[in-house]
Amino acid sequence: MTWLASSFMGRRGVAQAQERAHHSLTETDQGAFHYVYGPYAKPVMHVAPGDVVAVETLDAFGGAVKTEADLPSKVLNMPFVNPQNGPIAIEGAKKGDVLAVYLKSILPRGPQPAGTTALIPDFGGLVASSLTHLNAPIAERVKKMDVTPDGVKFSDRITLPYEPFVGTMGVSPEIEAISSLVPDYYGGNMDLPAIAPGAVMYFPVQRDEAFFYIGDCHGRQGDGELCGVAVEIPATVEFQIDLIKGWSIPGVRLETEDFIMSVGSARPMEDAARMAYRDLIRWMVEDYGFEESEAYFLATQAGKMRVGNMVDPKYSLGASMLKKYLV
Amino acid sequence: MTWLASSFMGRRGVAQAQERAHHSLTETDQGAFHYVYGPYAKPVMHVAPGDVVAVETLDAFGGAVKTEADLPSKVLNMPFVNPQNGPIAIEGAKKGDVLAVYLKSILPRGPQPAGTTALIPDFGGLVASSLTHLNAPIAERVKKMDVTPDGVKFSDRITLPYEPFVGTMGVSPEIEAISSLVPDYYGGNMDLPAIAPGAVMYFPVQRDEAFFYIGDCHGRQGDGELCGVAVEIPATVEFQIDLIKGWSIPGVRLETEDFIMSVGSARPMEDAARMAYRDLIRWMVEDYGFEESEAYFLATQAGKMRVGNMVDPKYSLGASMLKKYLV
Amino acid sequence: MTWLASSFMGRRGVAQAQERAHHSLTETDQGAFHYVYGPYAKPVMHVAPGDVVAVETLDAFGGAVKTEADLPSKVLNMPFVNPQNGPIAIEGAKKGDVLAVYLKSILPRGPQPAGTTALIPDFGGLVASSLTHLNAPIAERVKKMDVTPDGVKFSDRITLPYEPFVGTMGVSPEIEAISSLVPDYYGGNMDLPAIAPGAVMYFPVQRDEAFFYIGDCHGRQGDGELCGVAVEIPATVEFQIDLIKGWSIPGVRLETEDFIMSVGSARPMEDAARMAYRDLIRWMVEDYGFEESEAYFLATQAGKMRVGNMVDPKYSLGASMLKKYLV
Amino acid sequence: MTWLASSFMGRRGVAQAQERAHHSLTETDQGAFHYVYGPYAKPVMHVAPGDVVAVETLDAFGGAVKTEADLPSKVLNMPFVNPQNGPIAIEGAKKGDVLAVYLKSILPRGPQPAGTTALIPDFGGLVASSLTHLNAPIAERVKKMDVTPDGVKFSDRITLPYEPFVGTMGVSPEIEAISSLVPDYYGGNMDLPAIAPGAVMYFPVQRDEAFFYIGDCHGRQGDGELCGVAVEIPATVEFQIDLIKGWSIPGVRLETEDFIMSVGSARPMEDAARMAYRDLIRWMVEDYGFEESEAYFLATQAGKMRVGNMVDPKYSLGASMLKKYLV
Repeated sequence: MTWLASSFMGRRGVAQAQERAHHSLTETDQGAFHYVYGPYAKPVMHVAPGDVVAVETLDAFGGAVKTEADLPSKVLNMPFVNPQNGPIAIEGAKKGDVLAVYLKSILPRGPQPAGTTALIPDFGGLVASSLTHLNAPIAERVKKMDVTPDGVKFSDRITLPYEPFVGTMGVSPEIEAISSLVPDYYGGNMDLPAIAPGAVMYFPVQRDEAFFYIGDCHGRQGDGELCGVAVEIPATVEFQIDLIKGWSIPGVRLETEDFIMSVGSARPMEDAARMAYRDLIRWMVEDYGFEESEAYFLATQAGKMRVGNMVDPKYSLGASMLKKYLV
Repeated sequence: MTWLASSFMGRRGVAQAQERAHHSLTETDQGAFHYVYGPYAKPVMHVAPGDVVAVETLDAFGGAVKTEADLPSKVLNMPFVNPQNGPIAIEGAKKGDVLAVYLKSILPRGPQPAGTTALIPDFGGLVASSLTHLNAPIAERVKKMDVTPDGVKFSDRITLPYEPFVGTMGVSPEIEAISSLVPDYYGGNMDLPAIAPGAVMYFPVQRDEAFFYIGDCHGRQGDGELCGVAVEIPATVEFQIDLIKGWSIPGVRLETEDFIMSVGSARPMEDAARMAYRDLIRWMVEDYGFEESEAYFLATQAGKMRVGNMVDPKYSLGASMLKKYLV
Repeated sequence: MTWLASSFMGRRGVAQAQERAHHSLTETDQGAFHYVYGPYAKPVMHVAPGDVVAVETLDAFGGAVKTEADLPSKVLNMPFVNPQNGPIAIEGAKKGDVLAVYLKSILPRGPQPAGTTALIPDFGGLVASSLTHLNAPIAERVKKMDVTPDGVKFSDRITLPYEPFVGTMGVSPEIEAISSLVPDYYGGNMDLPAIAPGAVMYFPVQRDEAFFYIGDCHGRQGDGELCGVAVEIPATVEFQIDLIKGWSIPGVRLETEDFIMSVGSARPMEDAARMAYRDLIRWMVEDYGFEESEAYFLATQAGKMRVGNMVDPKYSLGASMLKKYLV
Repeated sequence: MTWLASSFMGRRGVAQAQERAHHSLTETDQGAFHYVYGPYAKPVMHVAPGDVVAVETLDAFGGAVKTEADLPSKVLNMPFVNPQNGPIAIEGAKKGDVLAVYLKSILPRGPQPAGTTALIPDFGGLVASSLTHLNAPIAERVKKMDVTPDGVKFSDRITLPYEPFVGTMGVSPEIEAISSLVPDYYGGNMDLPAIAPGAVMYFPVQRDEAFFYIGDCHGRQGDGELCGVAVEIPATVEFQIDLIKGWSIPGVRLETEDFIMSVGSARPMEDAARMAYRDLIRWMVEDYGFEESEAYFLATQAGKMRVGNMVDPKYSLGASMLKKYLV
């Protein structure tokens, strides 16, 4: 494989690359946000491998839930939720390449309380849906929280660590334009807390210029995003872009200083888990020289599984292996 | 609720109780091992709340896989796998009580290599089953490993930490006798790494004297027990028994110094995840005074999900919350 | 394969055998009913291949729901539901044989209204369960219906055809004793309308004398037994028993004059569907001489799938092929 | 609700409407076929309610599998499979309307053998996928069959009835463009044999002019489309279009002279089954005056469930009720 820009990431750890150019994509620059991952929108920006971009994202509600009185059923207009920045065109990207995105930082924006979570009727991990069940919905409710790098003020008594990540990011499918609520092989709404500063994301490019989208930052989240709504925040995300030629991956992967992770998105949940582990084994075999049954054994005894979301149209799980065992 | 013996465990941490009597249950004492969790066997031992028991367990193969040449398809005789010690009758236990089991230690037994894992045709998280698929099975294979408290010697290059836990334990159903390969509300084959020394397990008693079973120790395991076979070891497990009156729980729970966890066992996997989180919220509401929607929000933002197994007849997942947030 | 008694059933249609002896098993004869399929009960009767048995079954509520005011949550005592007659010991049956049961007739018993259905909180295909969901349960309700061979009087305006079948029947597992609410490879609570007069059932014998159980007759049922409760009736079921040596089957099969069917019981539902079709193909290959890919193609173009239940602990589906295509 | 054109279909049976204008859409007229259901393509034709259209569809392989030597892995170019005619713009259609499509006839086209089925590696109901499993794929194979209105010549010995239906049809999502391999609330690749001549399809319009797509005709198919490939044929489909104002439906419905059916598309399969039955009950309540629990009871005792596909990205099932019970 060839690293077009530099070797700021790769098998042997995450070493920051030489940064080529810096770009900024503000809310105003973005103008109209997008609600699908697809090839039909016009790029809002062109960048080259090695470039660093700082993007101002909206929260998943597009900022419409300003107070605890702004119930989602009142202020949201489906399907216009989970607004995305982009598409950012990546120079030189071709179908079959891998787009690498090194996440540098995520900072909350906007007036406090910047964080929003909510119980939305018919939506969430523990509630009946009117499409499948006869039960009455649970009561709608919004909770606003102050979110700063010092913490998420969940309540007077409980302050949770600020552990931000990107809920939704990825590249455009080749011919599909898919709701930003959906995760799949190209990325999208994975809601996986491992997609955090320090991680390098790998996406399989499906078309010329890749068309990168990003949005839906979370101040933090538990495993599974149980009620369907994390600590949703508007944020400034800074990341560096790179392009890898000659590396073929079937879906989303990521890497930190300590581990490699493959992401699976599917229903039922066991299929997401299988996809994640199956690709982790493929990765261990192809790039780290493991015999397949040895990789399967090692994943059995030392693999880790992170549940990203158990609420989206497809559930996303990440299977990982510590790099210290990839010897 | 009333603690019959003492308060060695409970809401506010795990404080070791005064130990009443010590018992030992060797392989020889056990004699015939059991392959079902049920009420139809005769108790091998009677103990009282506060008693400590040290049990010699067999590995999941009953010791039949002695070398890497002992293929499971040759040496196993279904359904006689995953042998269990017990039943241990608990004095005073009645349907509706909670049996508490404080795990004190797990030590590997037997000649080295004491650890066994295997690829078994038609079984495991990433393989087709002849009951549902047309594909040819993958090749059978056994891997033996030295296992000591210093580590699991996975290969010449890789030594993994010794992080032992109990794969299978629980109480008898009221009228069913269920294979020791199955996990459910009464415990059984959960294969959840959190069931480790330092944890207090809680099981809902279904019949007089509870009838406690235990077996299937693992030297360690990754999340999901991917190939279906962890680092299986014969072991000596030491634990203390207690009985809680006046506490009603719908399934297995556990507690450590740092967190509380509810276990769900079901298929598809999302139902196991839902059961685990649903019960965690019930626990937070009933014992820690949370309003239900606040508990749901907190689980969303700070809950953790551990995948025990994704290979058994029911998958087992554990949803947990740090005690420091239960304020 | 050898037919011990006679060839009243088999590949080429269902020709009634010479009947050897007639037995009757009344409610009084049965005495204590059973709530598990297992080997730990004492046989209530011994029969030989070729014998005909008439059994008086209770309805799934054990007759406790006498009027529409008898709410299940009030009158039922879990786990003592779905009472079963048996076990009937089959002379000469050995593990590995196939028990054949030719269903001759099902007649409703008892005072009218003989039929009962109900909405039970937390149970049914379209309702949230308190084990997995936070929603309030739907309202409990009982509906009683007159049931005669002339029809099921659903309401003043709607009379449905009397199309009776056996909800629960099968053989004992080898060492397990499993709730009569559960279906699996040995039979049990399949709730599959194809298990009706004229069908020959095939069960894989797991232990000496097979230990046959039967109960839970339905006056009729739609596909899926949607609310979880069919038209439950006490009934008299007449059937003839036979034993097939030298035929190995992995799960329940059945045959009528027109078609053969394999039954799969599992969760999620697609696994039940796969098990059913996978075994149908095995049957077509082993007994009808199809090349495997031809059988797979023919099942694709001409297979039928019947949804038995989508509410029990495992869902049961039946995949069938018309005999006229088995040429 | 208002019928714009005429009452050729509706609650009380399917009475053919007065036909307004006849259109023809040949392969040549269509020119470029489409591989997504979306709003980004330019309409190939505009029609008004009451119009009849005859469309020449390609088979799912776009005609690329001409002989049994044309293996899909060789001749297909993903994601360019399952080509669709359209979009056909419907005059006057607005988001919230219902598009009604009365299927009049489906006739096979092209040189014989016109029918194609295939075993495609990693695809199908009984095979392991390389995205989730480690097993080697099954052998690829193509089977060509003569298909005429007189029958599908499956083999020298077996001729199956010609029972044609449309595998893929529906309207455009509002902002998404989704692969024609996927079924969902807007229609798409349902592969449901009930979508046959004599049926009236109902689709919830998502955008101005509806944008109707159609393709993927099948000469026949068993329940579930087991291997993933039915008797794929190029065909001429004739249908009449109508528009219903003031009727709100959450997903696809259909109606024949004898029954009404709701379609659910989801994974796991039980969710598709729940969606189908849940909507059938909604329909019975809203349009036929049933009290909800009565509808739930009647669906339990008399509902039918048809398995369309168990192989596509979402499984499609249809729940139906005979009109004679809707009294």
